Amino acid sequence: MPKTHPGLAPDHFYDPSLCPVRHVLSHIGDKWSLLVITHLKFGSHRFSELQRAIADISQRMLTVTLRSLERDGLVARHVTPSVPPRVDYELTDLGRSLLPALERLSEWALETRPAIEAARERFDMRGS
Amino acid sequence: MPKTHPGLAPDHFYDPSLCPVRHVLSHIGDKWSLLVITHLKFGSHRFSELQRAIADISQRMLTVTLRSLERDGLVARHVTPSVPPRVDYELTDLGRSLLPALERLSEWALETRPAIEAARERFDMRGS
Repeated sequence: MPKTHPGLAPDHFYDPSLCPVRHVLSHIGDKWSLLVITHLKFGSHRFSELQRAIADISQRMLTVTLRSLERDGLVARHVTPSVPPRVDYELTDLGRSLLPALERLSEWALETRPAIEAARERFDMRGS
Repeated sequence: MPKTHPGLAPDHFYDPSLCPVRHVLSHIGDKWSLLVITHLKFGSHRFSELQRAIADISQRMLTVTLRSLERDGLVARHVTPSVPPRVDYELTDLGRSLLPALERLSEWALETRPAIEAARERFDMRGS
């Protein structure tokens, strides 16, 4: 039987405002932010390029996501005053600093994919 | 002016089913899953303990989250046939293998928190 060790959890678990995991998730904890950041690692992109690349994102969601990333200082927006104006987005140094952690997460996902798919099949076979 | 390099993005960006970031996000890409996993790293916990620890999660959301993590093989559920039955949750080896990547993400969040907060203030001051 497993033991419980509630005493080992640090205080920040009991105060959401102190929890670093919550903090990180408030910036990047939605799949669209992570997809945009991951896409921008290949270079700067125009709005329409990002929209094509992330085929299932709506125009509104891409606008909201880019604005939130810009507000957090992770993405920079460059406007070229042509007609029509051209707008490019690129990662800032701060945004780029997130890439190693994201790559680690992607590696984990790739490595564990077969095990997770097998677990799902077993769970679904149980019919519970 | 930034350059665009759309040619550098790998094919999996253009096919959501191939993208490892999407794959990882389909498992753990919501803040509740990440919070539950991070909490369970301190040992196994009963449902009620998790609910107390993650104060703002609803009973239904915790049930759904634990079930999804169990289906993915990341969390194991142990039932002790007492009256009433006691149910404990703990990370499996597969779930535990995610911890280094999550810790990396938390470290990034802690390190960059001041820079992100400063960026937000600048953005909000701009009033744009």
